[in-house]
Amino acid sequence: MAKAPVLTPQAEDFPRWYQDVVAKAELADNGPVRGTMVIRPYGYAIWERMQAELDRRIKDAGAANAYFPLFIPQSYLEREQEHVEGFSPELAVVTHAGGKKLEEAAVVRPTSETMIDAYFAKWVQSYRDLPLLLNQWANIVRWELRPRLFLRTTEFLWQEGHTCHATDTDARAYALRILREVYEDFVVNVMAVPVFAGLKTDREKFAGAVASYAIEGMMGDRKALQMGTSHVLGQNFARVFGITYLTESGDQEFAWQTSWGVSTRLVGALIMAHGDDGGLRVPPRLAPVQAVVLLVRDEDGAGERAAALRHELAGAGVRVELDARVDVTFGRRAVEWELKGVPVRLELGPRDATAGTVSLVRRDTTAKETVPLAGVAGRVTALLDEIQTTLYEQAVARRDTNTVDAESLDAARDAAQRGFSRLAWDGSGDAEDRLAEAGVTVRCLQRADGGLPESVDESGLFAVIARAY
Amino acid sequence: MAKAPVLTPQAEDFPRWYQDVVAKAELADNGPVRGTMVIRPYGYAIWERMQAELDRRIKDAGAANAYFPLFIPQSYLEREQEHVEGFSPELAVVTHAGGKKLEEAAVVRPTSETMIDAYFAKWVQSYRDLPLLLNQWANIVRWELRPRLFLRTTEFLWQEGHTCHATDTDARAYALRILREVYEDFVVNVMAVPVFAGLKTDREKFAGAVASYAIEGMMGDRKALQMGTSHVLGQNFARVFGITYLTESGDQEFAWQTSWGVSTRLVGALIMAHGDDGGLRVPPRLAPVQAVVLLVRDEDGAGERAAALRHELAGAGVRVELDARVDVTFGRRAVEWELKGVPVRLELGPRDATAGTVSLVRRDTTAKETVPLAGVAGRVTALLDEIQTTLYEQAVARRDTNTVDAESLDAARDAAQRGFSRLAWDGSGDAEDRLAEAGVTVRCLQRADGGLPESVDESGLFAVIARAY
Repeated sequence: MAKAPVLTPQAEDFPRWYQDVVAKAELADNGPVRGTMVIRPYGYAIWERMQAELDRRIKDAGAANAYFPLFIPQSYLEREQEHVEGFSPELAVVTHAGGKKLEEAAVVRPTSETMIDAYFAKWVQSYRDLPLLLNQWANIVRWELRPRLFLRTTEFLWQEGHTCHATDTDARAYALRILREVYEDFVVNVMAVPVFAGLKTDREKFAGAVASYAIEGMMGDRKALQMGTSHVLGQNFARVFGITYLTESGDQEFAWQTSWGVSTRLVGALIMAHGDDGGLRVPPRLAPVQAVVLLVRDEDGAGERAAALRHELAGAGVRVELDARVDVTFGRRAVEWELKGVPVRLELGPRDATAGTVSLVRRDTTAKETVPLAGVAGRVTALLDEIQTTLYEQAVARRDTNTVDAESLDAARDAAQRGFSRLAWDGSGDAEDRLAEAGVTVRCLQRADGGLPESVDESGLFAVIARAY
Repeated sequence: MAKAPVLTPQAEDFPRWYQDVVAKAELADNGPVRGTMVIRPYGYAIWERMQAELDRRIKDAGAANAYFPLFIPQSYLEREQEHVEGFSPELAVVTHAGGKKLEEAAVVRPTSETMIDAYFAKWVQSYRDLPLLLNQWANIVRWELRPRLFLRTTEFLWQEGHTCHATDTDARAYALRILREVYEDFVVNVMAVPVFAGLKTDREKFAGAVASYAIEGMMGDRKALQMGTSHVLGQNFARVFGITYLTESGDQEFAWQTSWGVSTRLVGALIMAHGDDGGLRVPPRLAPVQAVVLLVRDEDGAGERAAALRHELAGAGVRVELDARVDVTFGRRAVEWELKGVPVRLELGPRDATAGTVSLVRRDTTAKETVPLAGVAGRVTALLDEIQTTLYEQAVARRDTNTVDAESLDAARDAAQRGFSRLAWDGSGDAEDRLAEAGVTVRCLQRADGGLPESVDESGLFAVIARAY
């Protein structure tokens, strides 16, 4: 009799498979207040690796980290009309504190443009102060009616960058630099997820922005997930908050701004872009644990060999753990590490100890090879590179196989039910309404060569259309 | 005519000097909601260095990071009587969210015992699950009536550790391990601040704890600052939240717990423990910028030399910046770096470029030496070690000079107005009331040899008494 699978199969019910992975791989749990999330140690370790990789790229792009308060006075949020209208339905509000009713309600930040801009107005005086490039790692609250762990939670963790520039050109260039050199580079080269980068339509752009750029990945169910956004804000917020600077020629001008962010939603993307019916598959460059040494039984010196192997791999720069819990069945432990998506398992038992061998099991292909213990570190390092490449190639193949060039809106709408479609786009008429009726949206606009448009009014654009998270 | 000092002198008004340093070194600013704080990039860079050093030690002590929600249901907080009474006056409460009144108000976490314990109750089943050692980096809200930047703010950043153990002995040992190997080790060896480690009296202990341990440092005005706490919680919270486990012999038992934390208050400690009338003095092991190369004027190849010097120092592992802002006066830039407390300044002008020399200026002593450019990296590295040692020795000397062994409560109370006093302590009578009337408190209880007591009822204890932040 076949054993019941640990997870609901993807083909049977993708959303349930997702929930199962989140629970069984011990990534997260529901919080007690509706829509909130407990990020468990393994889920948080993945987020810490994401943070480290992103933080390095953000600093390389010249931005410095800072921290601004959680509570925004209600009046600040109300200053930019489009912005407050966009966020009002999602706000959590502190009305009482320190045992008293507050004179002015404090909003728990849904994003920090209005808070940070109030300080930019103090700090920016002259062209010498520009560009001013800040980033913060913070928690954010947006009340969600249909929460889903990692993908859409009432509280989430993110980084939000906020910058001021002397010219529109500088600001636009910086927004695109962040999109390409920070977000796309991280998602493609570390997370091994190919993306379409493009411009959002007016309907999909950030509340208060002039232009919003995004990267969109294809998940295992062929739906799109927005994985990062970078906004050109023009002088909209600068006018409202009075962020002015003295130009070199002695004039006062409003600063040009950007803002940009990625969040713990990326953990959801990781699950859905690479996961299979066995659980997570974490690309080696991202993995908090790249390899696990599984001691089968502690006989014939196998325990010592396993410990030495862990030590050797750690010395070779591999993020490795030793699982010597021989009082738990081997099968159960193997399933645990498979669920967690650790790229390479090294299984070592008494026979291996005697023979001087170890079995290597790849998580991506389940291929297994028995190799001599001597020189195993080199083999593991090479295998990690192979797995990184394989996961990326698999994701590219899925994306390309399921992306259709459509000739008409109807064809694009139908194809978008089963994947991505691309359609020549002029933005006129009720095209977006007709897509919305069918439950699909324009994920982004690109030039014919995949390049980034400056505005939605550019001619010769193509729309990438899909169902989306 | 002498120039007006940049900062209020310490001797004139220590609290104003503190405020001046925070503002002029660009560490932090007041937030718009009462008592909140904007941590500016240089202040945040110091906090990031603190986080990195503490996080490594916490992980070495076996704890894993996780993240729990910001919002705690009011009912959770109310379960532990002493705990809720301790925190009630400081709570911020969300009553409205998503455009509606909430059925149950959500409290913004003032600490996370009650939230995390609700999950420990699910995760802890058997002795095999113990010890369970978690930590989180998070923001915390406690409404403050008399806020001061870094020292006491309505919102602050911290880490909070929460653990479950199989026995009282294990839990106590772990609480002390964190106090000694994480907090004391970091504060002494990285922050260069000597501390008294000891047990809090019942009056000063954490609301809900069996015993609270703390490390207390002496600031520049000879007042005490609590720099970290580690609590033995017994089974108090475990009983309330139902954290039980199956013992090896098959019984159900409540888990034994600890919790422990340090916060952005440590940045305040850094300022007050080492700062002088010129500004901050940051110990090299902590400093985000350990050395700055100050280009005096870009003539005779000085600019190239300065850039090469920065490159060489970075290659030698020094955290170094190049200040080539030659359009700002040299004096103004030197004062800026002095305010920021960067341990070593390397001043390089055209004459140095020609002579192949550079001037090294120590921030701790203001000693200046001119040395050949060849071999300067080795000299800077050695100097950083010397400065670390000097700052620690100065802090020890101040602490020891200003700590008095008192023979009577009256003598101890008087001496505590000018520093620390130590007094044989049996905890009986109204001693703590009489100290409180004079504005001083028992900072901690120690054994005669400085060791940590198990309980306040132990005989032969000494009290460390001081004014405190």
